[in-house]
Amino acid sequence: MRDDSKISDAVIKRLPRYRRYLEDMRRRGVDRVSSNELSRIVGYTASQIRQDLNNFGGFGQQGYGYNVESLYEQIGNILGLNQEYKMVIVGTGNLGQAIANYTRYNKSGFIVCGMFDVNPELIGLRVNEIAVRDYETLNSYLAENDIDIGIITAGKDSAQEVTDRLVEGGVRGIWNFAPMDLSVPAHVVLRNVHLSDSLHSLAYYINRNKNQK
Amino acid sequence: MRDDSKISDAVIKRLPRYRRYLEDMRRRGVDRVSSNELSRIVGYTASQIRQDLNNFGGFGQQGYGYNVESLYEQIGNILGLNQEYKMVIVGTGNLGQAIANYTRYNKSGFIVCGMFDVNPELIGLRVNEIAVRDYETLNSYLAENDIDIGIITAGKDSAQEVTDRLVEGGVRGIWNFAPMDLSVPAHVVLRNVHLSDSLHSLAYYINRNKNQK
Repeated sequence: MRDDSKISDAVIKRLPRYRRYLEDMRRRGVDRVSSNELSRIVGYTASQIRQDLNNFGGFGQQGYGYNVESLYEQIGNILGLNQEYKMVIVGTGNLGQAIANYTRYNKSGFIVCGMFDVNPELIGLRVNEIAVRDYETLNSYLAENDIDIGIITAGKDSAQEVTDRLVEGGVRGIWNFAPMDLSVPAHVVLRNVHLSDSLHSLAYYINRNKNQK
Repeated sequence: MRDDSKISDAVIKRLPRYRRYLEDMRRRGVDRVSSNELSRIVGYTASQIRQDLNNFGGFGQQGYGYNVESLYEQIGNILGLNQEYKMVIVGTGNLGQAIANYTRYNKSGFIVCGMFDVNPELIGLRVNEIAVRDYETLNSYLAENDIDIGIITAGKDSAQEVTDRLVEGGVRGIWNFAPMDLSVPAHVVLRNVHLSDSLHSLAYYINRNKNQK
């Protein structure tokens, strides 16, 4: 088994980006690409790209470059996209529904199995053929189903409580959209999407541009 | 005027996070905080925190630490959150609606003024008292209104075309949710929220944890 434990978070964060560009090339029928070409498209230096991919044994050949299809597949394998992940979404307002649609649309291995809410008006609603369940039934659902990822699109005030239930129920990863930082045990992976952080840094750069004029 | 142009992107990305924690402390009635306490809460080292805040002249006092309210305000000012931003959303499916709700809910200075879609079933729909307009009217809307930020929640295939119209119409920033990297001129700021990148790195770490067991 490959030992990835020393690969930095920064490298791992770049891999999905490489894969996205390779996916585009693949769709356009491009067979192979050099690290210089990748550099122009992806925006990192060619040496950065070679270094990143060398972490995984590299897949390039001197004078040929990278085979697009093969590199795309191999990055997918490294990321674990060659398998299925069962997911539940807790909080089924617009954002929860958007994510349910999004993963379905992308026909990926990320499968939304259950959706949960506390709001009686949403319970029973069908989103992509999945009925929204009462949040009170989450524990028993998790006990009966082997769920890999819990997605939190619930409000800030309940997010930690939801997290605790998901962890107790055996999920291995939490994808959090609530605007707060959650506590999870070491064996559970947490990824946050903090939308306001992104918007606030956008505001900063808008002002910096304006001030420099 | 302060010259921020040499402050790294990494620092700017951390500021909204500091501010989020300070907001929590402020709400809990905490008056002051040391860089050591901030370190425990935020998760960066105390020296990192002092260094980050020194970029902006620092706001701490030896032996006292930081005044929570004042640091919160000052980070907000640095980020430009002491002013209003007019925004349009292009693409008003679940994700666009979620973002419209989100910014409203947060009562921030980010104001959604217009929403646009190509789908006749969505045009005319009211989201938070804002009627969804025909995308074909975007150009004339932008000519008549001074819009700061364009939010792209439209599909991948139309995202660059939408971007070009927004830029042509004078926006200063683009907040992009389409799963692709867009081209914008240097005077326009672009921030991407690539949801699939985040999900894919989550998958990676789930597998790494599993393999290490």
